[in-house]
This record gives sequence, C-alpha cells and structure tokens, in this order.
Amino acid sequence: MNYKMIAYLLGWVLKIEAVTMALPLICAILYGEQRMVGVFVSCIIICLFTGLFFSFRRPSRRSFYAKEGFVTVGLSWIAISLFGALPFVFSGFVPNFVDALFETISGFTTTGSSILTDVEALPKSLLFWRSFTHWIGGMGVLVFLVAIIPSSGGGNMHLIRAESPGPAVSKLVPKVRSTAAILYKIYIFLTLVQIGLLLAGGMPVFDAITMTFGTAGTGGFGVLNASAANYSPYCQWVITVFMLIFGVDFSLYYLLLLRRGKDVLKSAELRTYILLVITAIGFITWNCIGMYKTFGETLRHGAFQVASIITTTGFATTNFDIWPVFSKTILVLLMFVGACAGSTGGGIKVSRVLILMKSIVKEIKTAAHPRNTMKITMNGRIVAHETVRAVNVYMASYLLIFALSLLIISLDNFDFTTNFTSVAATINNVGPGLAAVGPTRNFFDFSALSKLVLSFNMLVGRLEIFPILILFSPSTWKK
Amino acid sequence: MNYKMIAYLLGWVLKIEAVTMALPLICAILYGEQRMVGVFVSCIIICLFTGLFFSFRRPSRRSFYAKEGFVTVGLSWIAISLFGALPFVFSGFVPNFVDALFETISGFTTTGSSILTDVEALPKSLLFWRSFTHWIGGMGVLVFLVAIIPSSGGGNMHLIRAESPGPAVSKLVPKVRSTAAILYKIYIFLTLVQIGLLLAGGMPVFDAITMTFGTAGTGGFGVLNASAANYSPYCQWVITVFMLIFGVDFSLYYLLLLRRGKDVLKSAELRTYILLVITAIGFITWNCIGMYKTFGETLRHGAFQVASIITTTGFATTNFDIWPVFSKTILVLLMFVGACAGSTGGGIKVSRVLILMKSIVKEIKTAAHPRNTMKITMNGRIVAHETVRAVNVYMASYLLIFALSLLIISLDNFDFTTNFTSVAATINNVGPGLAAVGPTRNFFDFSALSKLVLSFNMLVGRLEIFPILILFSPSTWKK
Repeated sequence: MNYKMIAYLLGWVLKIEAVTMALPLICAILYGEQRMVGVFVSCIIICLFTGLFFSFRRPSRRSFYAKEGFVTVGLSWIAISLFGALPFVFSGFVPNFVDALFETISGFTTTGSSILTDVEALPKSLLFWRSFTHWIGGMGVLVFLVAIIPSSGGGNMHLIRAESPGPAVSKLVPKVRSTAAILYKIYIFLTLVQIGLLLAGGMPVFDAITMTFGTAGTGGFGVLNASAANYSPYCQWVITVFMLIFGVDFSLYYLLLLRRGKDVLKSAELRTYILLVITAIGFITWNCIGMYKTFGETLRHGAFQVASIITTTGFATTNFDIWPVFSKTILVLLMFVGACAGSTGGGIKVSRVLILMKSIVKEIKTAAHPRNTMKITMNGRIVAHETVRAVNVYMASYLLIFALSLLIISLDNFDFTTNFTSVAATINNVGPGLAAVGPTRNFFDFSALSKLVLSFNMLVGRLEIFPILILFSPSTWKK
Repeated sequence: MNYKMIAYLLGWVLKIEAVTMALPLICAILYGEQRMVGVFVSCIIICLFTGLFFSFRRPSRRSFYAKEGFVTVGLSWIAISLFGALPFVFSGFVPNFVDALFETISGFTTTGSSILTDVEALPKSLLFWRSFTHWIGGMGVLVFLVAIIPSSGGGNMHLIRAESPGPAVSKLVPKVRSTAAILYKIYIFLTLVQIGLLLAGGMPVFDAITMTFGTAGTGGFGVLNASAANYSPYCQWVITVFMLIFGVDFSLYYLLLLRRGKDVLKSAELRTYILLVITAIGFITWNCIGMYKTFGETLRHGAFQVASIITTTGFATTNFDIWPVFSKTILVLLMFVGACAGSTGGGIKVSRVLILMKSIVKEIKTAAHPRNTMKITMNGRIVAHETVRAVNVYMASYLLIFALSLLIISLDNFDFTTNFTSVAATINNVGPGLAAVGPTRNFFDFSALSKLVLSFNMLVGRLEIFPILILFSPSTWKK
C-alpha cells in the first residue's frame, strides 16, 4: 500500500475543501453575518493547514492500484465530512458533533436527510455551505481533484472508478484528466442553466443558487422549512425537469455534444429510466386524483415527487406521507431503483436493475434451451462477466448492510415503516422516508448510534459500498 | 417438450392426492362427521378419475430433461392446490374458491398463512386435511412419487432437483429412487417421534397428530384459534425443538445414520443455523425481559418464536406483534434467512446467505490482493461457479417478485408494515407477519387479487422460483 501517496491525495482533498469554503465565506460577508465570517475563516485555516501538512511533499513513488484507489476515496470522504462538519459545530447551530457529522455526510453524499427541525433559523452562509456540499459531492471530490492536479502516476482511473457510481465506469476520452474535466464542465453548464431558469421564474437569487445545488447534486437540502412547496408551479416544473436531467448518465450529454444523438436514444438505461418515470407519474396521478384541486396540480405533485425520489434528490412539494399506500409504495420502490449510472443520483441504479433482470431472463431461457449459450447484452454489447459478478456482489453487500442497519436502528423502538424507510432513504441517498422520517419530519429524534449507522449508510450508498467496506477489512492493511 | 410424460406424471400426482385424502376421510368417519364423509368421498373420486385419465397409458418416450422437470413440478403443485381446495369449497366452510385456494396453497407450500377467522369452527376432518397438506408439501409430492413409482427414464433427478429446496441438490445414494425413499423414511420416523413425545405430554391425540404435521412440514396451521399458546410449556418446548430439527438439512440425518457424526458437525450451514438461533433467542430474551412473569417464560416464548420463524413454521405461543421493535425486526430478518437447504423449511436458506456472504469477503480480499485467485469454499469444498450464479439469479428474481408483489397488494391500502410482512411471510413460507397480519390476525381482509398474488408468492417461495417462473416464459413453450 502506497501510504505516502494516499496521504498526499488526502492533503489535496482538504486543500480543495478549504477553497470551497471560500464561497460560504463570501456569502457571510455579503449578508453581513459577522459571526459566520469568523467561523468560516477558522474552518478554512484548519482545512488548509491540515491539507498542506499532508500534501507538503509530492511522493517519489506514485504507483497506485485499485486497492489504493478505494482506500483513498473512502478516507477522503470521511475526511471531508469530518472537516465539513466544523462550520455547523463552530457556529453553535448544531453543537452536537454527531448531529453535525450526520448533516454534513448527508450533504456530501447528496442524501438530504436532515436533523434540523427549523432550517430557516440558520444563517444564510451556513445554509449555503449545507447546499454547496451537495454540489461538491454530486460529481465527486476526487473527480475534481483529478481534473485539476497533474497526473498522479496512472492511478487517476482507479480514483474515478472508485468514486463514480455505476456497475462499469469508463473513460469518455483517452485521457483520464480530460474525462474528469469534461464531466465537470457539463455539470457547471447545467447548473448555470438551471439557476438562470429559476431566476427567470422570479425565485430569489439565494434560493435559486442553493436549490440548484440541491438539484444538481440530487441532494435535497432546501432553504425553507416547506422544502419546495412554496415555490411557483413554474419553478417546481423547472426543478422537476432538472432533477431528471441530473439523474441521467453524463456520458450521454457528452455524446450529445459530439452530435451523436442517435446513440443517446439507443441507451437501454435511459429508455428504462424514462419508462419508469412516466409509468410512475401515471400511476400516482391516477391514484391521487381527488387529493388536489385540479388534475394539473395532481400531475405536478406526482411528477415532482417521482422525479425527486427516482433521482434520489429528496425535495418535496407536498406531504407524500399522506398519499394512498399504493403511491407511497411506488415511491419506496423507486428509492431502491435510483437514477442512472454515471449521474449524480444514488440508489441501486437503473443499469444494475437492468443487468439483474436480464440475468433472470437469461437463466430461464437457458433452462428451456440448455444448448443455446446466451450472453447478457446491453446497448448491443455483451456485458462483461466481471461486471455481472460485481453487480451481484454489490447486491449481496447492499442487502447485508441494509439488514444489519435495520436491526441496529430498531433499538430506538420507532415503528417498522420509519426504520425501513430510514435505511432505504439513507443507503439510497434519497433523504426523506415515510412515517416519522416523512417529508415534513426529520432524523433528529434518532439516537447517536442510529445516526452514526445511518451516516455510514449514506457513505456506503454514495460510494457504492466497496471504498467503505474495504477500509474495515483486515486484509487491506496487511502487507 | 415431452408433454405426454408430463401429463402422465401429473396424473400420478393426482392419484397420490386421492390416496392422501383417505386419511381425512377416515378421520371424518371416526368423528362421525357425516357430511364430511360425503365431501371427501367425492373429492377422492374427482382426483382419482382425473388422475387415472391422465396416467392411463405410460408414454413410450420417457426422455426427460431439466426443463420438463421444472414444468412438471410447477404444474403438479398448481394441480394439487386446485384439487386440494375442493374439500374446503364442498364442505361450505370456505365457499369462495380464491379463499380456499389461498388456504390450500398455504398448506401445501408449508406457509401457514390463513384466511380463517375461527379455525375451531371447522370439522375435525377438514382441520386434519388442512394440517396434512403441510406434511405432504414439506418433503414434496414428487419426491414421494419418485420413491414409489418405477424409474421414469432418468428424469427423476430433474424432478427432485426442481422440487427440493437449496442452492445445490445432490443424491444421498447413487439411486435417485432410494434417495427419495431414505428422505421419506427419516421424515416419517421423526414425525412419529414427535407425535409420541406430544402424547406423552398429555396433548390430545388429534392435536398431537395435526400439530406434528404442522411442525414436520414447517407449516404452521394450528387447530386452535390460539395457535400453540394453550399447550403446556413441555409441549411448547417439544414443538420448539422439533421445528428446529425439521429445519435442518435431512442429508445430515442420513450421515448420522451412517455414524458419520463428525461430518455433521463440520457442516458450515448447520453451525451458522445454530449460531443464528442462539443469538436471536439471546437478544430477544434480553429485549423482552419484563414482558412475562418469569425469566423462564420469556426464554420459552423467545425460543419458540425464533424457532418458529427461522424454520418458517409460523406457530405462535404469544402475540409477538406487541414485542419491542428490535425483537420484531430480528424475527422479520429471520423470515428472510429461513431454514437450511434440504430441510422442509422455507426462506432464502442459510446456505444461500452463507454463499452470498462468502462472495462479499472474496470480492474485498481480491480487491486488496488482485494476484491471489480466491475460490468460494463451503465445508472445505469449492462451491461450483454454477451454484454461485444460480444463487445470484435466485436473489435477483426473489427481489423482483418481492417488489412487484408489494406494489400490487398495496392497492388494498393496508399500511406498509402489513404489506411488507405479508409478502415476506408468504414468499418465505412463514405464515404470520406483523400488524394486520400479525399472529392473532389473518389474511381474510385482502382483496381477491392480493390473495392470488400472495398465493403465487407462496408457490414461488416453496419451489424456489424457477419451476413457477418457467411456466410464464414463452421460450419454454416454443418448439
């Protein structure tokens, strides 16, 4: 294990975090939040010096393998969460460190589950930081690092693989660094477009920026206690469409840039994603007719909630916890499906679900015609055996972690629905669940142990399990 | 597809069903239930003649492959359920055919979920038939068929594979027919021992026999409204121990007969099963202290419920729906784990869970040391790649069916806990769930659609998915 290189990269990650904190600092200055200026300055100093300490000397040996990639990503996310929680603690608004850590991990992992009962009581700059963590975590901090620092000896691809969601991560262009830069450019472009459209709809500047951070990262932290319920129907539709846009594989946008629109339409994952969204909206609108004044309003709430849940964003325009159970069950199932691979969204991912379903069809057909050797294909190409195996192991670990988490948090004696949807909402990076963690409630009442377990689930969900699990395996640390 | 051979075997299965109905007929005669005598005689005639019609001529071409094995098993179980429901309908006690079918499938699949609100109102002979379906379904009707009729052209192993639970079914002795006979002999012996022990504890003969049927098949239908709550502590302990005994791989009992006790103790599945049972009893007893008068009573209820749920039997000595959520969550998780492969129990099976966990460990170790090629081993032997793949496809289909079932039954608008545990209790062949389907409640209030979906789940659970799924695949019926 190349410890020096890992420490060096960790140092860089913290330096980046220090730089990102400059934005809420500017926000604090603009809004004249004296105390928060001091808070962010001290946090920046702490991050910067710790970062400089670790990345002071570039290691001579830069060789870097898959294992180091996983470990670096796992440790980086833990580090940015620990340091990212400091503004909450120092400001005094979330004095308990476990609570602050929960909120920060929820931010970076783009989950959006909150322990805050009254977000409107927070200073603007702290709300800005909270939403900005979504934006940083959405595309990934190491993807950003790879895009800006000179090559670290061929290990870049291991970092991107370990941090990016999906069963098989590949490069857009031959150079890893250029791939990372392209991804971030598309991300920034889409973010700016959404901010512009929200401003055009008359949304206040602060809300437009922070709500866009929450949408782009498919996070879900809002700046009002009512989440997205108080915004105009136009703004809600803009957010709906952009949540869906950020839930699509970014490599498809790159194909669009290359004017290869036909290839985009051929994507089985995109087609399934669109089909799921339309079907879910249709069923929910039908199921909820009569709950709102007009058909248009029912459709708007249905579409917003479906987009919010399948992309694992977690904004809400209505209290869907009072919907009929059929509609709620659709939402719970969409939590698990999640967004597309290579998007900023969480969950199991549409492509994994597709691979699993294709493996079932293959098995049944093989049983019927044992002499025909069948392969699982996607978009006309054979899915590598390694990918199928990885999906299966992912599912097994996912279920195991889900079961153990459910067991531990049940010690708090909340009802089964609350516990089940708490784990589902965190491991899939959604945000709200049902019952006591429904869209109008929050995670404050859980014990510290449960909050740590759910934080672990958020990390495991965002990093797709292995970068975190590998940290706990003794074999990783053996020579 | 060898349709003639499939029809021939189906005919035999119905003839066997006619013979098994002789037992409740005798019961009706003994208890002087005039009307039920007529009911069972007519049912026997219908089964017998339909059976004779299909098995009249032994087909000349007897070649028989895996596909035919699956199809035969799937169709046989549907057939015995359709005909087995007749006594409920003809007697007038369950006039609705969907309800009667639900109850019969619940019986044969050893689930034990009931739509009856007052079982004590039923005549003894009907209760006997209801419990006897558990005993027949526990070891399998085609396993019985294989044991008694002359070889059907090398296809016997395909039938046993398709009907027996577990990731990899193998023969005990070179001859398939002898293997089936040995299994049934062990089954009958253990059944007789349990009846004897219950009689020794002063249980009435009728109850001792029917409760033993429910235990042996890990079914769960009782003959009293209070399930097993009114029996003496001694009898409850006997049932606890025998539920656990019937949840063990029967091939281990065969090893015991061969005086190979050391090999039995080496079984990783058995060790895990015992560990799970002891841990669960320990935690629940600790969690429920103070709910019952004495520590002994708490332990007894804890042990009974754990044994009942992990073996997917479903008897209850107490209303565990009022236990703390932690204890209830343990029970829900045990529903999924289920019993050992090759037992009469349901669920995912301990060995599948073990294989999944070992595949996770393998993946993490391989990530850390990519040059070491690792294999998944069990009891010192390498688990075949085919077996691992089968387990993965099983899990994928299981999750898909679970999700779709949950969605459909949610149309009835019961709460999420009821819906989730209804599907869990049926697909794992447990019986009772939580909330509206808790141990003191039943499945009567569900719509006909939901009852059919849950019946489908019971069949899918008992036959481990493929024999049922393959019936719905167009490729099966193509030439």
